[in-house]
Amino acid sequence: MEINGVIIDDTYAEAFPAWVSEIIITAANRYLAHEAAEHATGFASSLIGSGAEAGIDYNLPPDRTPDGRPGCVILVAHPSKQQLKDQLVQRLAECVLTAPTTAIFNGLPDAPEKLPIKLHYYGDGYEYRTKIKDRNVWAIPIMGGEFITEEEIGCVKGIAGGNFFIMGIEQMATLTAAQAAIDVINGVEGAATSFPGGVTGSGSKIGSKMYKFMKASTNDAFCPTIKHKNPHSMVPEGVKAIFEIVIDGISEDKVRMAMAKGIRAACSIPGVTHISAGNYGGTLGPFKLKLHEILSS
Amino acid sequence: MEINGVIIDDTYAEAFPAWVSEIIITAANRYLAHEAAEHATGFASSLIGSGAEAGIDYNLPPDRTPDGRPGCVILVAHPSKQQLKDQLVQRLAECVLTAPTTAIFNGLPDAPEKLPIKLHYYGDGYEYRTKIKDRNVWAIPIMGGEFITEEEIGCVKGIAGGNFFIMGIEQMATLTAAQAAIDVINGVEGAATSFPGGVTGSGSKIGSKMYKFMKASTNDAFCPTIKHKNPHSMVPEGVKAIFEIVIDGISEDKVRMAMAKGIRAACSIPGVTHISAGNYGGTLGPFKLKLHEILSS
Amino acid sequence: MEINGVIIDDTYAEAFPAWVSEIIITAANRYLAHEAAEHATGFASSLIGSGAEAGIDYNLPPDRTPDGRPGCVILVAHPSKQQLKDQLVQRLAECVLTAPTTAIFNGLPDAPEKLPIKLHYYGDGYEYRTKIKDRNVWAIPIMGGEFITEEEIGCVKGIAGGNFFIMGIEQMATLTAAQAAIDVINGVEGAATSFPGGVTGSGSKIGSKMYKFMKASTNDAFCPTIKHKNPHSMVPEGVKAIFEIVIDGISEDKVRMAMAKGIRAACSIPGVTHISAGNYGGTLGPFKLKLHEILSS
Amino acid sequence: MEINGVIIDDTYAEAFPAWVSEIIITAANRYLAHEAAEHATGFASSLIGSGAEAGIDYNLPPDRTPDGRPGCVILVAHPSKQQLKDQLVQRLAECVLTAPTTAIFNGLPDAPEKLPIKLHYYGDGYEYRTKIKDRNVWAIPIMGGEFITEEEIGCVKGIAGGNFFIMGIEQMATLTAAQAAIDVINGVEGAATSFPGGVTGSGSKIGSKMYKFMKASTNDAFCPTIKHKNPHSMVPEGVKAIFEIVIDGISEDKVRMAMAKGIRAACSIPGVTHISAGNYGGTLGPFKLKLHEILSS
Repeated sequence: MEINGVIIDDTYAEAFPAWVSEIIITAANRYLAHEAAEHATGFASSLIGSGAEAGIDYNLPPDRTPDGRPGCVILVAHPSKQQLKDQLVQRLAECVLTAPTTAIFNGLPDAPEKLPIKLHYYGDGYEYRTKIKDRNVWAIPIMGGEFITEEEIGCVKGIAGGNFFIMGIEQMATLTAAQAAIDVINGVEGAATSFPGGVTGSGSKIGSKMYKFMKASTNDAFCPTIKHKNPHSMVPEGVKAIFEIVIDGISEDKVRMAMAKGIRAACSIPGVTHISAGNYGGTLGPFKLKLHEILSS
Repeated sequence: MEINGVIIDDTYAEAFPAWVSEIIITAANRYLAHEAAEHATGFASSLIGSGAEAGIDYNLPPDRTPDGRPGCVILVAHPSKQQLKDQLVQRLAECVLTAPTTAIFNGLPDAPEKLPIKLHYYGDGYEYRTKIKDRNVWAIPIMGGEFITEEEIGCVKGIAGGNFFIMGIEQMATLTAAQAAIDVINGVEGAATSFPGGVTGSGSKIGSKMYKFMKASTNDAFCPTIKHKNPHSMVPEGVKAIFEIVIDGISEDKVRMAMAKGIRAACSIPGVTHISAGNYGGTLGPFKLKLHEILSS
Repeated sequence: MEINGVIIDDTYAEAFPAWVSEIIITAANRYLAHEAAEHATGFASSLIGSGAEAGIDYNLPPDRTPDGRPGCVILVAHPSKQQLKDQLVQRLAECVLTAPTTAIFNGLPDAPEKLPIKLHYYGDGYEYRTKIKDRNVWAIPIMGGEFITEEEIGCVKGIAGGNFFIMGIEQMATLTAAQAAIDVINGVEGAATSFPGGVTGSGSKIGSKMYKFMKASTNDAFCPTIKHKNPHSMVPEGVKAIFEIVIDGISEDKVRMAMAKGIRAACSIPGVTHISAGNYGGTLGPFKLKLHEILSS
Repeated sequence: MEINGVIIDDTYAEAFPAWVSEIIITAANRYLAHEAAEHATGFASSLIGSGAEAGIDYNLPPDRTPDGRPGCVILVAHPSKQQLKDQLVQRLAECVLTAPTTAIFNGLPDAPEKLPIKLHYYGDGYEYRTKIKDRNVWAIPIMGGEFITEEEIGCVKGIAGGNFFIMGIEQMATLTAAQAAIDVINGVEGAATSFPGGVTGSGSKIGSKMYKFMKASTNDAFCPTIKHKNPHSMVPEGVKAIFEIVIDGISEDKVRMAMAKGIRAACSIPGVTHISAGNYGGTLGPFKLKLHEILSS
């Protein structure tokens, strides 16, 4: 299969189930909402070493948020519901409650399951219940004014680890293609990327052949500089750089849609030669997201 | 004391000792260095609920970095040296090693103490030692090319919790003043702010009167909306919003310099009426950073 | 009439007819498209001293542009069709043809009138005709590769000078409200603002009482600092700052919609007390955009 | 000559004399100063079709500006002193006087020649003279508050058209190198770039072989896609894209320094193979900026 002259490998991305919440962060302006969202989703690249996987999912214009202010929606994912809850409590308290002019609303109001994120204790008794349109919220007096937060945050059985690899003849061209992919994935509501800027330059394999104490190590089969030293190398001839996009989402459909749009965008950038994906023989998870299938629908 | 008509309270900021490291993150361009730095310092507002306190300290032009590329220097702080090390390992592995085109260098090469941040294990045996100018580094083959990292990261006995309060007649004006302060503090090398965008709208007191299980709660004495309910309120007449700037640094001097510059910048914005600072009767730490003294030197 | 406690004056914005074109600028990524769009719409605040009025109208995701790359749509307006054409030729040649990786497409393909913007002469004979999907374009060899441009650019009878005033108790709060308005106006396709950042701090009146050679001068009736010197002052009691939003659009409807959304957003920011609008007794133009009417629909 | 494996052609950039002014634009925060500066230097790529050449030169921290607020310094150049003055009057009136919270100061206070930029007439008699530190300024009442402007703007005999070409094996890699060059040139006070984002993808030659009415046309000798059609092609084997950086400055020295730093930065990006420069047999101007000489000092 080819798109725009780029070879699409006949392979699949292996993904795993995760509980996923979405939180609407609003603020007096888009910049302030974005700063809080960036901070709340920082240090959340992958479960290998972060407490959760998290990313900015999409921006909401004022006429789509509960309080009529600009909003930024973040996605947070973890296989354990309890740990997802703990991460939400800490990240929202540390990074959103503390940020200037922000408010918090449930981004998945239709989700049947809810996590109780009890930030109102921070009000030390001065807090009170109120309503913003049809939402039950707490108002917590703070130094900057009042902090508004919904405490019932919906969560759904979603999916983590959707991914694809972009391969090219040169590092910066390949990276530009990865950034083009991120740009369009940002528009898919319900799917988000968790790495810095959405792109990773160092995909991993599970475990390590040499260092047994490591949970993960470099994905050596896809490292171009050691192609000729590594008998198991899967780097195609002429490929000098590979970047990976990892996608989490509220459903398999959303992740597939994000993969399809991202791959097409990457294939529009000169210098890209191959698209592939990461899979680990079923050790990572049960989902198989086949590239050819995704790109044919 | 007054600056530009703004009353400077005769009080002090209470701060505590912390181990502090600085890491130079370089990348192919400033944007990429900044993205990695943002991510590595995310979810790091305060030790109340974050694993460390961290922030971007300053940008380095290419001619001041070890590898001649644009750099962004981050500051990470923790009272425990062991926990600082653990946080550095996780944050640098998750947020910088994974980011496109980045490299890591020790930002405090003259510090006598060093923390071993052994990222090279990630290379699974394909890594090798090399030199970038006078720096001993590891080169780790990754999908995007090679990741370069110095593994001996200097740390010093620094200071955390330097702070000041900006009070004004209106929320957005006071926030603008806080942002002006941040803008100038960003230029002080050796001092950084850890909250989202550098400003917090919800300063805290230690513990809680009402909820005994809380480590911290709202700084009620400085919450304008409950001024008339709270007999202990310290909100001056006419003040409608208070924002706090919290500063960590590699030395008391750097924090004092950042406080002085930040306060002066805040006082240049119309609508600001008072500057104060947070202290807790010595329960937080031994440093007393007196506003009048800082602003007189 | 009041919104959120803010008084809406019973007045109207006076606007005038103008020819309006829209141009889609695409590029390898959103940043590059935006840079070219910013440059092409620079030095274009108002016809008082600029060759045209121009602004960024909206962003287009890759799946909505002719060439599948991220796009930025600019709006350029002038009462004279000939001068609109001249400005398009110069601005597109100087600011988009020269920018890295950009392409140009007609943003109003359904407009019955077309302006011929003949950039292909720049190719010095090396240029050739080709197609991007259903669009007839020229490909011009340049140093960076090939520049693609559609040369028939649609134009319509639109409207310029739609406006409203935001008044508040303090400068920075009022400015924050103006920025909130801009943030939401940016989402209205077919309407754009031409001042730096979309906000003007110095509205004007036609001519000057004191300096007869001036085409325009300060809108003294709305200058807060001279309220007590100026018998004709229309600054309400307690108002300390007024910012104006000026909107051009492809139709009266689009401008009215942008005004309505912008006013509502501004009214959500604390510190705003009044909304008004600029009119000049019919000397500027025939359109009367009544605030109460616009906000009731 | 080689830098980092990149071949530096033994050639020179041809530049011409121009009058150059620098203006300090300050504002309540860095963002507002930058917006006004961007707008004031928009539509100013080259004298082929713009009224002037202009660009942002450097940022000033609050402690280096006359009014203690963040500043952005712009450079404006034109061979004719009268036209430079006219452009300054229009650009500063349209793009800075109108922008929120801005002020204007002379950026070359030591220049012996001064241009009178009489913005105070805009005040319609309500304006008054005052001082900001040692600067004589006018205060003009406007809707947003008061606009402060110095009216004597220094100008010097500078230089325009300094340039170099970056050539590489692939478009996006070569563009990344050009952006790396811009990033470091931004740090050279007294030199600025005028194209969108600082980089041009379509260098020009004087006149046109085919279309006699054109003042300038594509620099065909350096267009990679027509290498095999053009007997005069100077595109080296393997080069697929060329980007040009054009630099104006207050002195030949500043332009040479910016060229040297920019070339070195570009040579640090993988995929770049050659650096060259544009010259036109002395028809453009008297300055010959030799690459080897510049890079040896």
